[in-house]
Amino acid sequence: MIKRNSNFAKLSSRYLFREIENRRREFARNHPEAQLISLGIGDTTEPLPHSVTEALKAAAHRLGTREGYLGYSQEQGFQSLRKKISDIVYQTKIQPEEIFISDGAKCDIGRLQLLFGEGLSIAVQDPSYPVYIDGSILQGVKEIIPLPCTPENGFFPSLNSLPRVDLIYFCSPNNPTGAVATHAQLEELVHYAKKNQVLIIFDAAYASFIREAHLPRSIYEIKGAEEVAIETNSFSKWVGFTGVRLGWTVVPERLKYSDGTSIRSDWERLTTTLFNGASNIAQYGGLATLEIEGLQEADKILSFYLENAAILKESLLSQGCKVYGGDNAPYLWVSCEGTNSWELFQSWLENLHLVVTPGSGFGTYGEGFFRLSAFNSRENILIAKERLRVNLKMNSIQNYGY
Amino acid sequence: MIKRNSNFAKLSSRYLFREIENRRREFARNHPEAQLISLGIGDTTEPLPHSVTEALKAAAHRLGTREGYLGYSQEQGFQSLRKKISDIVYQTKIQPEEIFISDGAKCDIGRLQLLFGEGLSIAVQDPSYPVYIDGSILQGVKEIIPLPCTPENGFFPSLNSLPRVDLIYFCSPNNPTGAVATHAQLEELVHYAKKNQVLIIFDAAYASFIREAHLPRSIYEIKGAEEVAIETNSFSKWVGFTGVRLGWTVVPERLKYSDGTSIRSDWERLTTTLFNGASNIAQYGGLATLEIEGLQEADKILSFYLENAAILKESLLSQGCKVYGGDNAPYLWVSCEGTNSWELFQSWLENLHLVVTPGSGFGTYGEGFFRLSAFNSRENILIAKERLRVNLKMNSIQNYGY
Repeated sequence: MIKRNSNFAKLSSRYLFREIENRRREFARNHPEAQLISLGIGDTTEPLPHSVTEALKAAAHRLGTREGYLGYSQEQGFQSLRKKISDIVYQTKIQPEEIFISDGAKCDIGRLQLLFGEGLSIAVQDPSYPVYIDGSILQGVKEIIPLPCTPENGFFPSLNSLPRVDLIYFCSPNNPTGAVATHAQLEELVHYAKKNQVLIIFDAAYASFIREAHLPRSIYEIKGAEEVAIETNSFSKWVGFTGVRLGWTVVPERLKYSDGTSIRSDWERLTTTLFNGASNIAQYGGLATLEIEGLQEADKILSFYLENAAILKESLLSQGCKVYGGDNAPYLWVSCEGTNSWELFQSWLENLHLVVTPGSGFGTYGEGFFRLSAFNSRENILIAKERLRVNLKMNSIQNYGY
Repeated sequence: MIKRNSNFAKLSSRYLFREIENRRREFARNHPEAQLISLGIGDTTEPLPHSVTEALKAAAHRLGTREGYLGYSQEQGFQSLRKKISDIVYQTKIQPEEIFISDGAKCDIGRLQLLFGEGLSIAVQDPSYPVYIDGSILQGVKEIIPLPCTPENGFFPSLNSLPRVDLIYFCSPNNPTGAVATHAQLEELVHYAKKNQVLIIFDAAYASFIREAHLPRSIYEIKGAEEVAIETNSFSKWVGFTGVRLGWTVVPERLKYSDGTSIRSDWERLTTTLFNGASNIAQYGGLATLEIEGLQEADKILSFYLENAAILKESLLSQGCKVYGGDNAPYLWVSCEGTNSWELFQSWLENLHLVVTPGSGFGTYGEGFFRLSAFNSRENILIAKERLRVNLKMNSIQNYGY
C-alpha cells in the first residue's frame, strides 16, 4: 500500500488548539456546573458589523436570482476586491495583480510552502503560531532555527548570530506575545533579508489592531521590502470572519527566486491549479468591510476587543503579574512565574474555570508564559477579572487555587 | 535567494481553463459584436434553489446577531453536515467521522497529495481533469502512467497491462468524457487495487447527474472499497456552489498506509493544521441542500442541465457526429474527426462563436476530441443548436465555417 509522508511522524500528535479544546470539553463534561470562560483560542465573539451582514445577505440573495447568479470567479479573487485592498490597505503601493484573495491566512501559509525547493532552512520567531513550523515540517523542511523572542530582547530577535537560512517567518503584531515590531526593527529585518538574500513571510493578520500610528501595519511600509517579502493577511480578526473565511496574500512582482524567475507568476499558477477561489459570498463581505461604513463599524469592534485586553492587563498588573502585549494586539503574554505552562493551564481550568493557552505550545521560549485572548464578551471579561482579583490576591500566581 | 520548487518548470505554463478564458476574452475584445456562447468551462449557470438561497441568507443574518454569531468551527466541518452526508449520500455506510467537509474537491485534491511519501508512481485516466496531474507534479511525483480511455474500450481502461503504481485517480461520471463506470467496472477497479495494494482517489463530483439506478454513484457501493479508496465529492455541480465553495472528502477508517498507520488520522491532522474549515455560510447551504426540499429543487436543476445535454447530443448526432457521454453527466465528448482539437477550438470560436474545450487539454488521448458542457441557459443551448444545424449541414465538422 501507499507510503506515508514520513514527515507526519515528526509532528506532535495533536494540533495545539485542538488539544486545548479537547481538554476544555472533557472538563466541561465532568463539571457541567462550571461556568467556563475561554481566554484560550483566539476566536472572535462579536457579531459581524451590520453593513457587512447586509452585504452577505444581499450576495446570497443574488445567487438565487437569474441576473445575479455567479459561478466560478477568478481563482485569485474578485478584481474589485483586489483593487479595493490595494487602495485602502496599501494606498496603491501594492498593485491589485500582486494581491491574491484566499480563504484565510492559515490556508495560504500551507500553500505557500509548495512554492519552494526542498531542504529549506527556515527561521521562526519562538514563540510563534504553530502553523509555520507544522506546515514546514510536512513539506520536508531541512532545518528550523528558532529566533528567541523574550522580554529581555523586547520580543525582537537578534539577527546577528543567525546562520544562513532561506526563509524567515515573522508575525507582527505577534501571535502569541502581542508584541508589535517598530519601524526601525522591521527596517533591520528587511535590511538583513536583502543583505543575506532571505525571503520573509510576513504575517500581518493582526495589523488592524495597531492603534499607534508610528507602528507599521505592513512590511511594505519598509523601503525595498517588496524585493524580499511575501505578506499574508486576513479578514478573520479584522471583521470577525474566522468562520466566514477570507484573507489575502501579497506576492510582489519584484520578488524573484534564486534563478531569477518570478515568484508571483508561480503563485498565480499554483492558486489556479490547486485552489478555486474564496467563497463569493465572503468576497462580497470583504468588499463591504472596505467601505467607509464597514471600516468604521469594524473599528468599533476592534476597539472593544482592545478595551477587553486593557481590562485584563490592568487587572493582572495590579496583582503584580508580569504582562506583555495587549496594547496593539488582542493577546496578552503573561509570565507563569516559574510554573510549567501546561500545569498552569490545567490549574486555571480546574480552579479558576478560565481557559488559557499554555506558552510552550508556541515553542520552547514560550515555556514559562501563557497567552490570554481578549476576544470575548465584556461580561465574561469582567467575570474573569473578578476571579483573578479574588484568587490572585490570596495566592501567588503559582498557586492560583480557589 | 530562495530556490524555486523545480517542479513548476514541469507544468505547462498555463492552466487549461485559464488559457481558454484568455482566448475567449481576446476574441470578445476584438469582436464585441459576436454573441459568444460558452460551452467550454463546466460552470453552473442556473440560480441556486430557493430553499438553499434562503438558508444562506438566514446564516448570514445570524452572523450579525449576538445569539447566532459563529467563529471558528471544527476544521473538519459541522458535525451536523457530516452526519447528514453520512445519512443521505451514503445511507450511513460511511460514518460522519470519515467525512471531511472542504471548500471544494479541487482544493482537497491538492491537499491529499501531501499525505503520501515522495517518488510516487501514479496512474490517471487519459483524458482526465488536469488537476490530478498538475497537483501530482508539484508534489514531486516520480512517474505518471496514462490509462487510455477511448471509444474502443468503452472509456474504461485496461488494468491488466498496468505496471506497479501507488495511486490511481479515477473519475466517474468522467470529466471530460461523460462516461460512467458500471458496477462491474468499478468492481474490477477495486479488485485490482486490493490485489495490487494500490490506493484509489475516486472523484465523484458529478455523481448527482447519474439517472440510471444501476450505475454506482459512489465507489463505496463496491464491497471492500473502504480498504483501498478515498472519495472526493462536491456541492459545486450538484447545487450550483461553484462560487460558494463546498465539498467533502471521505477517508475511511479502514484505510491504512503501508506501515499500517491510519490515513484518516493523518488527514484529520493535516486539515487541522493547514486548513480552517469551509465557510460556515456555505455549510449552512450544504445542510439545506440535504433537506427534502433542497434535494428536490437541486434535482430539477440537474434534470434541466441533462436536457441541455440531450438537445446538444441529438443535434450533433443528427449531423452525423460521433458523440459520447451526456446521459448521466453534464459533458459531451465529441470526435473532431481528424482535426487538431486546439485548431477546432479556434475555428469554432471564430466561425461559430461557440467556446468548447479542446480534448488535448485533458491528455494525449483527448486529442481528436472536444468537450461540450451542458451548463447553460436553454436559450443559449437552442442558439448553439441552430448554429450547429446551419453550419454542420453545409460543411463537414472539419470545416465548420460560417
